[in-house]
Amino acid sequence: MKHICILGSTGSIGTSTLSIIERYPERFAVASLAAGRNVDVIFAQCQRWRPLVVSVATELLARDLASRLKAAGLTSTEVVYGTRGTVHAATLPQVDFVVSAIVGLAGLEATYAAVVAGKPVGLANKEAMVAAGEILTRQARRGNVPLLPIDSEHNAIHQCMRGGAAGEVRRIWLTASGGPFRQLPQDQFQHVTVEQALRHPTWVMGRRVTIDSATLLNKGLEIIEACRLFDLPPSAVRVTVHPQSAVHSLVEFVDGSILAQISVTDMRLPILYAMSYPERVSSDLTFDMATLGQLSFEPPDFERFPCLRLSYQAAEAGGAACIALNAADEVAVGAFLEGTIAFTSIPRTIEVVLEATPPRHPETIQEVLQLDEEARRVARGVVAGFSPVLN
Amino acid sequence: MKHICILGSTGSIGTSTLSIIERYPERFAVASLAAGRNVDVIFAQCQRWRPLVVSVATELLARDLASRLKAAGLTSTEVVYGTRGTVHAATLPQVDFVVSAIVGLAGLEATYAAVVAGKPVGLANKEAMVAAGEILTRQARRGNVPLLPIDSEHNAIHQCMRGGAAGEVRRIWLTASGGPFRQLPQDQFQHVTVEQALRHPTWVMGRRVTIDSATLLNKGLEIIEACRLFDLPPSAVRVTVHPQSAVHSLVEFVDGSILAQISVTDMRLPILYAMSYPERVSSDLTFDMATLGQLSFEPPDFERFPCLRLSYQAAEAGGAACIALNAADEVAVGAFLEGTIAFTSIPRTIEVVLEATPPRHPETIQEVLQLDEEARRVARGVVAGFSPVLN
Repeated sequence: MKHICILGSTGSIGTSTLSIIERYPERFAVASLAAGRNVDVIFAQCQRWRPLVVSVATELLARDLASRLKAAGLTSTEVVYGTRGTVHAATLPQVDFVVSAIVGLAGLEATYAAVVAGKPVGLANKEAMVAAGEILTRQARRGNVPLLPIDSEHNAIHQCMRGGAAGEVRRIWLTASGGPFRQLPQDQFQHVTVEQALRHPTWVMGRRVTIDSATLLNKGLEIIEACRLFDLPPSAVRVTVHPQSAVHSLVEFVDGSILAQISVTDMRLPILYAMSYPERVSSDLTFDMATLGQLSFEPPDFERFPCLRLSYQAAEAGGAACIALNAADEVAVGAFLEGTIAFTSIPRTIEVVLEATPPRHPETIQEVLQLDEEARRVARGVVAGFSPVLN
Repeated sequence: MKHICILGSTGSIGTSTLSIIERYPERFAVASLAAGRNVDVIFAQCQRWRPLVVSVATELLARDLASRLKAAGLTSTEVVYGTRGTVHAATLPQVDFVVSAIVGLAGLEATYAAVVAGKPVGLANKEAMVAAGEILTRQARRGNVPLLPIDSEHNAIHQCMRGGAAGEVRRIWLTASGGPFRQLPQDQFQHVTVEQALRHPTWVMGRRVTIDSATLLNKGLEIIEACRLFDLPPSAVRVTVHPQSAVHSLVEFVDGSILAQISVTDMRLPILYAMSYPERVSSDLTFDMATLGQLSFEPPDFERFPCLRLSYQAAEAGGAACIALNAADEVAVGAFLEGTIAFTSIPRTIEVVLEATPPRHPETIQEVLQLDEEARRVARGVVAGFSPVLN
């Protein structure tokens, strides 16, 4: 029986994780939960799952939740809050596996604390690996702690990697759906509307991630994540545009063999894989080979998608550049969604922030968070510069 | 350093194996060679590779070769002949790995002897696993001897299998190019000429194998081979038609993940893989992802390709039925190539021979060879019955 901590239990990955625990009660149980501000949902989760510890964003929310739990007669759950609360939830002695699914950098300290405490971690949070991947993987290697990717591409890579030793990998290929603008002519990008950018062809996701899929910055974050997770140089991490999203990624070995992973586009599959590893657990998530039909693969266009080029640049530089890439993008996407900057100003913001970022390699999570703040400040300035004239 | 025995050194797989040994002199060396009647080529191979032992088909050929070697001053090579000679070559104490690439059942005894002697075997010979797969795999499991498939499909399966434990496989998918008649309407099959059937779209192979690819009996033999090699029931071995021959086969795990293997269509790749396993050795056999382009997958048509149905039937029955399938096909294909029976009479011959084959499960290679002879006799009778009227 594995006792699971879910950091981000009310989000999409969190609820999917709970649905897996529900499906396999003989294998998994909930040890602890951490969420943000959605007290109604977290209260219902406590009623259903009786965690040992639950953490929410603030002291006020914690008091509210505690009194509701008491009124319901659920006194066995300890209610905590804030970063210290999340760290407590993630490092409980009873926890066997941590699902790290808090969006952004809010869950970073708890994820790091889990690794320090020797807990295997399932990583559903790209930003954490982009901003602090060097620190997280160094600590994981030191303590021989498994880091298991939960997003579909890196999970696919993890599966394909089993076909050889780490030193036998020549390069990996991350598949990209290509987003809604895969075939858009270069001169049309400046006119892209928020509504158009939010229409993703294959995956339903959050708003920032959807915009990141349209700029391919999302794939850029994955390039950096892959470098960290699999200890590869950026030159060994390639992108292939595969609009059908059936092949989730590929690994090319030194002998010339390529292994590819194919499955339904359902996040429960990588979650189940990560939670069960090294075992594989039977599921009803069958990919219908009859529907495989036509698959296509084409090289990405670095001209029309400058975010890809910027991501390789950040991946090469490492450290502060990766933090800046992520922070600048989040600020720029926010501005784009609010209608204050053009779609093409997203990569321009990132480019300017990258140029303004001195090379640094943070050693601690605190430093990472500080560099993130700095980059955001710079990015807000850049975005403000664009704002008066749209574009 | 691995010392290699090549059974079938003058054939296509044999010469490819020698080219790999040539390319990696720090890893591989020739220990022994076995061939048939091509004394010129085997003499040249002895000059180049100085094997400890060389075996040819007959005593006469052996005397000829021995005198030529003596004249050339090559006295360190022992020349032997016939089945006993092949067995001797395969079981030399100095041999670390046996490449079993003699076409048909001629190499079966030596392959079995190698397994009994505890030598890891690379299997390039479909017929051996079809006719005697139960006996070979039982012996291999007993002695914990690796059997490594060298044909592209089963080699792909072997690679993909590394993504999980044996018990975690739900089913496997063998890819089929579909052959030259993939889109031929049912009523045209009776008019297929030898010339048409010998035009294979993607692989260049021997004449029987090319005809087997046109009837899909080739894929049928692979179904049986896969059942034996990977210990799977026929229902867990599926076929998907994939005309581009880029994906060489796929493994579906119980959790719903599928791993696929992709590579150039070059037999040196599976040979190198088998000879190096569990290592992967760097090669220049790069698959250009840019050329991957469009891939398609479709279900096979059991109506137009009755050999597939007959193969599943034989796979289910096992033992004598598999021997009969292979033997009847070889006889029927021979008759088709000679112009004495129609293309559609190939599956009909197999069907009649299968019906005439009583269920038996041979325990020894001798019994296998006997059942093979019986099936050929029956098949020749069936073919003779067709002959007067073409069709």
